[in-house]
Amino acid sequence: MVIFNQITIIGMGLIGSSLARAIMEHGVTKRLVGCDNNEKHCQTVQVLNLVDHITSDPLEAIQGSDLIILATPVGTYGALGEALCPHMQAGAILTDVGSVKSNVVKSLSPYIREDCHLIPGHPVAGTEQSGPEAGFASLFDGRWCILTPPEGTDPDMVKILEKFWQALGSKVEHMTPEHHDMVLAITSHLPHLIAYNIVGTARHLEEVTNSEVIKYSAGGFRDFTRIAASDPTMWRDVFLNNKEAVLEMLGRFSEDLTALQRSIRYDEGDKLFELFDRNRRIRQQIIEAGQEEDVTDFGRHTEE
Amino acid sequence: MVIFNQITIIGMGLIGSSLARAIMEHGVTKRLVGCDNNEKHCQTVQVLNLVDHITSDPLEAIQGSDLIILATPVGTYGALGEALCPHMQAGAILTDVGSVKSNVVKSLSPYIREDCHLIPGHPVAGTEQSGPEAGFASLFDGRWCILTPPEGTDPDMVKILEKFWQALGSKVEHMTPEHHDMVLAITSHLPHLIAYNIVGTARHLEEVTNSEVIKYSAGGFRDFTRIAASDPTMWRDVFLNNKEAVLEMLGRFSEDLTALQRSIRYDEGDKLFELFDRNRRIRQQIIEAGQEEDVTDFGRHTEE
Repeated sequence: MVIFNQITIIGMGLIGSSLARAIMEHGVTKRLVGCDNNEKHCQTVQVLNLVDHITSDPLEAIQGSDLIILATPVGTYGALGEALCPHMQAGAILTDVGSVKSNVVKSLSPYIREDCHLIPGHPVAGTEQSGPEAGFASLFDGRWCILTPPEGTDPDMVKILEKFWQALGSKVEHMTPEHHDMVLAITSHLPHLIAYNIVGTARHLEEVTNSEVIKYSAGGFRDFTRIAASDPTMWRDVFLNNKEAVLEMLGRFSEDLTALQRSIRYDEGDKLFELFDRNRRIRQQIIEAGQEEDVTDFGRHTEE
Repeated sequence: MVIFNQITIIGMGLIGSSLARAIMEHGVTKRLVGCDNNEKHCQTVQVLNLVDHITSDPLEAIQGSDLIILATPVGTYGALGEALCPHMQAGAILTDVGSVKSNVVKSLSPYIREDCHLIPGHPVAGTEQSGPEAGFASLFDGRWCILTPPEGTDPDMVKILEKFWQALGSKVEHMTPEHHDMVLAITSHLPHLIAYNIVGTARHLEEVTNSEVIKYSAGGFRDFTRIAASDPTMWRDVFLNNKEAVLEMLGRFSEDLTALQRSIRYDEGDKLFELFDRNRRIRQQIIEAGQEEDVTDFGRHTEE
């Protein structure tokens, strides 16, 4: 199902390269152009034959494209928008895959021309791996993509972008950028932050050696190391660009943790039990919603 | 390889029933007796044919056993020790699988007789599932079992218990109870506590609905729901019985989190990047140590 004449993906990391694979697999464009400022990434993309044309020059990359997808860390958007917007083809859509949305709108809207369309987006999907080798076509299949079109965006253009994501297997939802940032702060940003934090805490202990942390990590710790292995540049930019919502959620998390700490200190077993017992159900709901596999211990014992 | 004449397992949940399966599979005892105060568990154990004899009466269960394994929540150990120790067979070993060790020694050592042997243990293994249906024989295979024999324990008896765990596929390590509790506080107890806590925080938000948390959980949150689905009674007892070490680790975690929060507030991108970048390596080390599968995203995309 061809939707676009030419799509350009700027940034061929995990998400960009997965998009390229999915776009090729589903045939949603006549021509696909990739762009990356990392020469090694460009070579990998070439070797893996992920796009029709790969270049390290973004201005060259966007020539003649009716869809441009930013898939670089969100901290790069301002400079990219300033450089690219004047040269976009009239009528083209500029979108992205960034994990924050309010600041993306702020970074890009000053540059977008009247005859082009800015429709920020966020596919809620990923792995702890990075780079063009790590991508795969089904990454977006069954996952949600959140679009945050600014007020006044041509609804036909939004529908075209919706069709694009649906062609890759995604389900599409609309939100305001502010609401998106609040929802993702709790479902994604805070989990990453506390995973990074506990791994850091473990690394700095004197009483417990690193090798002990590694040996006995099957007690729970190893689960946290997965998301703490995610791309550091991407996540630095997420936290700096969703400061308000992250600090708000972090404040609530810390309050709750302090209450929990108090319950432990004063032997309030009933309170602990009540919290632990209630929380069991949410995993079942996530599995029922198709957002998690129904597999014990992340399938670590599938050989049984 | 027969090591014992008769083993009794008190508590036929995930760990107890996995032990039963592993013991039967590896033929380490002539006779295996199970005990559980939950009538439904007893029926399941019978139907699944996990032991030679199942009873709800612990005094009956330990008659003639040369190894008794407590696999109930650690809060029950005091009463069990008081009831059982006077009736243990002379020369028998009393061990356990509890996640804390100092308090276990405190609970049981007043009751253990001179002619018996108390050797507390902790297999660092488990899943988020509970009950006798959830167990499987290979749960301990390749995992570490930590023994914390009190000073003066007969080394031959410790060796016998070591052989037992090794027969089930485990690697064995010795520690003082105090060091065990510190190591597990960071590798297991704190991860569970913060997982329970973030799920609780998410549940109480007004701005973000429960259904949004579920839909967008693939951004990271769903990883935390696995260990937050663990048995609430077991974990209540862990926190109440390892208070000191958990509060110590929680204090460090909170300090680190406050520093991280400050770095976000004051746009200290370099500090964030440095922390995130360093933490990537530990997952690789855990995989290399054989304590985690080398599978991206916990194998959620294995269909590719």
